[in-house]
Amino acid sequence: MSKPLILVTNDDGITSAGIKKLIYLMAEIGEVVVVAPDSPQSGMGHAITVGDTLRINRNDIFGDIEAYECSGTPADCVKLAKYELFPDRKFDLVVSGINHGSNSSISVLYSGTMSAAIEAAIEGMPAIGFSLCDYDHDADFSHIDDTLLHIARETLKKGMPKGIALNVNFPEKREQPIKGIKVCRQANAKFEDAFDEREDPYGRKYYWMVGSLVNHDKGEDNDEWAIAHNYVSIVPCQFDLTGYFAINYFNDEWDI
Amino acid sequence: MSKPLILVTNDDGITSAGIKKLIYLMAEIGEVVVVAPDSPQSGMGHAITVGDTLRINRNDIFGDIEAYECSGTPADCVKLAKYELFPDRKFDLVVSGINHGSNSSISVLYSGTMSAAIEAAIEGMPAIGFSLCDYDHDADFSHIDDTLLHIARETLKKGMPKGIALNVNFPEKREQPIKGIKVCRQANAKFEDAFDEREDPYGRKYYWMVGSLVNHDKGEDNDEWAIAHNYVSIVPCQFDLTGYFAINYFNDEWDI
Repeated sequence: MSKPLILVTNDDGITSAGIKKLIYLMAEIGEVVVVAPDSPQSGMGHAITVGDTLRINRNDIFGDIEAYECSGTPADCVKLAKYELFPDRKFDLVVSGINHGSNSSISVLYSGTMSAAIEAAIEGMPAIGFSLCDYDHDADFSHIDDTLLHIARETLKKGMPKGIALNVNFPEKREQPIKGIKVCRQANAKFEDAFDEREDPYGRKYYWMVGSLVNHDKGEDNDEWAIAHNYVSIVPCQFDLTGYFAINYFNDEWDI
Repeated sequence: MSKPLILVTNDDGITSAGIKKLIYLMAEIGEVVVVAPDSPQSGMGHAITVGDTLRINRNDIFGDIEAYECSGTPADCVKLAKYELFPDRKFDLVVSGINHGSNSSISVLYSGTMSAAIEAAIEGMPAIGFSLCDYDHDADFSHIDDTLLHIARETLKKGMPKGIALNVNFPEKREQPIKGIKVCRQANAKFEDAFDEREDPYGRKYYWMVGSLVNHDKGEDNDEWAIAHNYVSIVPCQFDLTGYFAINYFNDEWDI
């Protein structure tokens, strides 16, 4: 039986520690190809490159594993892999990450990692975004191997419901081992932003966005709760943004 | 009674014809302030600027209307307006657009126009993204005034359900006037992409993303159907991406 074909991408760029880890884990269970951004793309959301050119270059940093770096966004990488680089092959799984930092709760909207997974889901491919809730460049990934492989294997075995990509967040390494997996809803949390105003050497103002996540969710069935309690969170994410509950409201209450 | 305060932004940039139209329409019903990108940001999805600096400059192209141009994305503009430029004021309405081109069906995910509206909804502000299904730079906007103003007035009067931003798409100008408004779900359509391969003057390959929307939806309750039949489509969009229907599936079928 031939090995499953697995596409690996990310948003931190092809030289990040997280994608290297993911590539070598996936190589244990499938044939891996890599198409990843040539530079960090954090916070890119579901951006695509429509008004500019795209470059693709073969990269041999992963030895025998076929890898390409791309000048575009994570979503571009998935489109290029499917339509340009591997038009005659069928990916059994698309994985994105491992992101250096959380993509839980509202961060899923800003996440380049998840935009790649969601783009793959739009194309009908089983897809998972993996993130580690540790922003350290030298983050310790040693505690997540078994759970990550288990989630990938379950996906390969059982497939993915139509219209869904998984947003998987691992807690940072703690003294106690991970307690297990929780399938969650997206927590009701948002960033309280602030802007750090500075002056450049020419006397002109500029700003850095700073902000912190504020969790307004009191429930225990959401991803923030799970991660805080040392569980791996899985949120099934959909790309149909329709708020169905609101359709009747507008028809009933508005003068349409 | 004081006029409602309306924030106007977009993704085509502060000099586009669409935002100018929107600003002058909103000035009929409220006090308008503008914070918009200083350059086109189409296809930016829900990108934010996390690894780079932001610049803001006052711009007087709209005369007495207080306007700022920003180096960031549409979502950045909303964050800057709320947290940096107008921290002590409360926006009664945030409008984004009018986009030059459709943001119906799956395009909502790639849309900078809608990311601004969704960012505003995350901040609890009533928000609408307006798009005209005409990509022409000199597109005719003359047929949409009444409907656009009606939708804005209804929002000011009745508010917006929690967690919802509106994705409003106007059909391009036709011989017959617009038939009316339909509250819709997001159509099941996606882009079939292709990449136009070219060679630069130095002999290196580069690519342009090209592609066309393919509509797989047979229903009549979706935005593609409405626009094709000369209706204005309104899709209530949510930023909770959880696919609730899938949570039980994973708990039941997966070895968790």
